[in-house]
Amino acid sequence: MPDLPLAVSLGDPAGVGPELIAAAWAHRDAAELAPFFVAGGPELLAEAAARRGIAMPVTQIFHPAEAMDCFAWSLPVLAGADGTYAPGAPSREGAELALASLGEAVGLAVAGEAAGIVTAPIAKARLAEVGFAQPGQTEYVAAACGVVVQDAVMMLAGPNLRTVPLTVHVALADVPGLLSAELIVRRARIVDRALRTDFRIAVPRIAIAALNPHAGEEGRMGGEEIAIIAPAIAALRAEGLTVTGPHPADALFAPHAREGYDAALCMYHDQALIPVKALDFDSGVNVTLGLPVVRTSPDHGTAFAIAGSGKADPGAMIAAIRMAGECAQRRIEG
Amino acid sequence: MPDLPLAVSLGDPAGVGPELIAAAWAHRDAAELAPFFVAGGPELLAEAAARRGIAMPVTQIFHPAEAMDCFAWSLPVLAGADGTYAPGAPSREGAELALASLGEAVGLAVAGEAAGIVTAPIAKARLAEVGFAQPGQTEYVAAACGVVVQDAVMMLAGPNLRTVPLTVHVALADVPGLLSAELIVRRARIVDRALRTDFRIAVPRIAIAALNPHAGEEGRMGGEEIAIIAPAIAALRAEGLTVTGPHPADALFAPHAREGYDAALCMYHDQALIPVKALDFDSGVNVTLGLPVVRTSPDHGTAFAIAGSGKADPGAMIAAIRMAGECAQRRIEG
Repeated sequence: MPDLPLAVSLGDPAGVGPELIAAAWAHRDAAELAPFFVAGGPELLAEAAARRGIAMPVTQIFHPAEAMDCFAWSLPVLAGADGTYAPGAPSREGAELALASLGEAVGLAVAGEAAGIVTAPIAKARLAEVGFAQPGQTEYVAAACGVVVQDAVMMLAGPNLRTVPLTVHVALADVPGLLSAELIVRRARIVDRALRTDFRIAVPRIAIAALNPHAGEEGRMGGEEIAIIAPAIAALRAEGLTVTGPHPADALFAPHAREGYDAALCMYHDQALIPVKALDFDSGVNVTLGLPVVRTSPDHGTAFAIAGSGKADPGAMIAAIRMAGECAQRRIEG
Repeated sequence: MPDLPLAVSLGDPAGVGPELIAAAWAHRDAAELAPFFVAGGPELLAEAAARRGIAMPVTQIFHPAEAMDCFAWSLPVLAGADGTYAPGAPSREGAELALASLGEAVGLAVAGEAAGIVTAPIAKARLAEVGFAQPGQTEYVAAACGVVVQDAVMMLAGPNLRTVPLTVHVALADVPGLLSAELIVRRARIVDRALRTDFRIAVPRIAIAALNPHAGEEGRMGGEEIAIIAPAIAALRAEGLTVTGPHPADALFAPHAREGYDAALCMYHDQALIPVKALDFDSGVNVTLGLPVVRTSPDHGTAFAIAGSGKADPGAMIAAIRMAGECAQRRIEG
């Protein structure tokens, strides 16, 4: 276990974040979670737990380190902003609370007072209304760490598969124009390094997906494999990285194929996310690679429609907290 | 069981086709396969079976109907072209045999002498060298049936999922320009009809995938959902079809989501094939919808590299033959 607790942000308090944080705390022993605290929202978290039928005392703490002692029998929550629990009813006040919680959690991790950050889901459009200037939490964390956003790399990790999308929130028509050998090389290096340090894989094997069906069939169905992806793979191999591809994407996530790599570098959002969600829906973790701090989040949204109903599955939140603790520990052990 | 046998084509005899046909015959009782015969290659099939350690007598027949009697204890093979079994070593002679077998199987089905066709995998480039003028077997079968190729619709069907790609063997960059509301409507109608007749689903539920990540987020990441997909869905609903979408593709193949539809209509090749191969790799069947004859094939290629080694999994071939028999039976029962 790291000797510092993980910092967990509340997420939008009208979403499923608070109840899933409570559910994760309830699973802390079974899932072998590292100690964590939540940045703000003590009353709200207590209400969310009660509504879900979870017996969860809340201990208000004033410094992260205090979480280490009380985590075993209560949820440590940093004293600060709070709100009324109104699941399914997002509000301006809720967005302000979410933003304050995120800022505090990230600030403490960057300051070295928390072992890492786990962010619960926010509603980006709502946060933007209260002054959030970034497109998403990943960019926010990167900026707080002083890392250029291109080098904060999203990885989706489930029990069966790890994927990294090279392009993310862009129209599919724009994807081909955004690809370059330089981008692939830069991202693959970050993935390689993170798999070594945070996942303790001595010689990471990275599979690079093709853009076109059947990897373009030697240029007959698109030229990006020949012009962009193959040269990037050659350059990465020349640096000593264990990289293969371009692999036809349809076969890359089949059971036998998955045994051949530790992470798949994908060309676009759905290519990376379809297989992870098909195989590991309730346990997918979003990990940000390339940062000086460990950061994970559950791979789902606020799910306002089911917030407070008890239906939301805590698997991904539990997996996110567990993975953050493991990565932080591996960094400590070097 | 249909009262006519299914016609199975050999595929490229240097590929895994012959041994998988033999393996499927060996599983005929366990998998409850309808009787089938192979169009040509009696010596070659006997050799392929022997090499795989399968005790399989071969009965040469001269008319498809004769297969019904001998199928229980031997593989019925239509007398005709034959060749030497040379797994992993494709040749011009082998391509000619594959083409002759395909032509005979399709001709018999179209003539009403076989209950349907199951095609083993071919190497398209090799068949082209011996005069095959179509891009693939699906187009060949469609032409033989007098159906325009746009109306011969490929569906991938596994135990967990059925998907239909709207565009297939084209560069990803060309996909957005090929989509239209008319195309979606035309294909969805064919899928709806086939699910009723061949899969006996009284009210088929068709989910239509988005093209862009997060279904475009109301136009912020691509406009095809608003301009093309949503109007097509509205038109299909107005016709009385049970159609939903556009669904963000990453979540559409997660376990809970899959319960909500009978087939997913996808915008491009990998969007349809990634989830089927991730979930149902060794049991995926390619079914051609919209034809007057039943046609299926295993969802894999010739696999020259492992042909003759005994490593090829017969699951998809068995599933393809089983599905063809089931679909043929449902058509008979109307």
